[in-house]
Amino acid sequence: MSEVIANMSMSLDGFVADTNDGIEQVFGWYGSGDVAVPTAVEWATFRTSEASAGVLRHGLATIGALIGGRRLFDLASGWNGQHPMGVPVFIVTHQEPTDWAHPEAPFTFVTDGIESAVAKAKAAAGDKNVAVASPTVVQQCLDAGLLDAVQVDLVPVLLGQGIPFFGELAKGPVQLDGPTVVEGQGVTHLTYRVRR
Amino acid sequence: MSEVIANMSMSLDGFVADTNDGIEQVFGWYGSGDVAVPTAVEWATFRTSEASAGVLRHGLATIGALIGGRRLFDLASGWNGQHPMGVPVFIVTHQEPTDWAHPEAPFTFVTDGIESAVAKAKAAAGDKNVAVASPTVVQQCLDAGLLDAVQVDLVPVLLGQGIPFFGELAKGPVQLDGPTVVEGQGVTHLTYRVRR
Repeated sequence: MSEVIANMSMSLDGFVADTNDGIEQVFGWYGSGDVAVPTAVEWATFRTSEASAGVLRHGLATIGALIGGRRLFDLASGWNGQHPMGVPVFIVTHQEPTDWAHPEAPFTFVTDGIESAVAKAKAAAGDKNVAVASPTVVQQCLDAGLLDAVQVDLVPVLLGQGIPFFGELAKGPVQLDGPTVVEGQGVTHLTYRVRR
Repeated sequence: MSEVIANMSMSLDGFVADTNDGIEQVFGWYGSGDVAVPTAVEWATFRTSEASAGVLRHGLATIGALIGGRRLFDLASGWNGQHPMGVPVFIVTHQEPTDWAHPEAPFTFVTDGIESAVAKAKAAAGDKNVAVASPTVVQQCLDAGLLDAVQVDLVPVLLGQGIPFFGELAKGPVQLDGPTVVEGQGVTHLTYRVRR
């Protein structure tokens, strides 16, 4: 059964990036190990601990579509049309970009809201799961009751300030179950289920 | 060797209390298990999983003094002069309270700053450790380079808003090592060392 799973790397004080959108600190674990994990693209081979490699391989094998926000899309330059996960990507945005250089790529711009984005991503993922990145999109999924699980890749650093993973919730608190814990090097993978 | 350890219960989105200073959500794990952990006071016996009981017993055996902020002291009504940890308590404050009902209790009001509070608490703790609660005091310890470790009792809930554990840091990012992980029920105990 397809599930919708929020996933981001987060500092212990709750940030997914520093105030300048820098992700060196929270993404360091993707390149700090010995075990190579190839992705769908040549420019991104992760190198992690064996424990984290298992988590990444599981994600690559079970995620069938991604949802992200427009801000992330712009910051990542649209991954040049090739996301490392190698799956269809759905970008939640108010307006389609007018200058998208990769119209052939499996990217869909969803302008009619989060429910529509999740429905489209689920249809594309089939039996596989849908991963949700971007704090604002995760927040919208939580508020709409669309999220099945949250995977936090918790990084041992205090940034002091930055872009928070979790935003203000319309209907908090949201109870979680778990987590399952996988201890990597420079990261602790915590997966929680959202209680309905 | 005596160490200074920050410790609080925190929601996955980083809060130690809700916006009304409510701690039912983040402190629930202290009473949700079968294993009784007596404290120094009759009114507080914790009931947790065996794993969490081990963490609590270790704290009771190794912590020799506490530092807290004035806000926490006021919210807790000064624990009526009897803190469950049964150790000397040092309250960082701008002004001593004028109406403290328990002048005989082992509570010291420190009005000359965080370095002084840590020095006094260390002297009182002897070979044992000093635990630091209160977000503002933890923040001051981090900024002054006085913290050796951070123990987060991470609770599976998203509050959406509230009182954050970690504040803005004068000299971030602060790198951590670890964590060691103890999986309780309704709580995950994560202990990090502060890298110098």
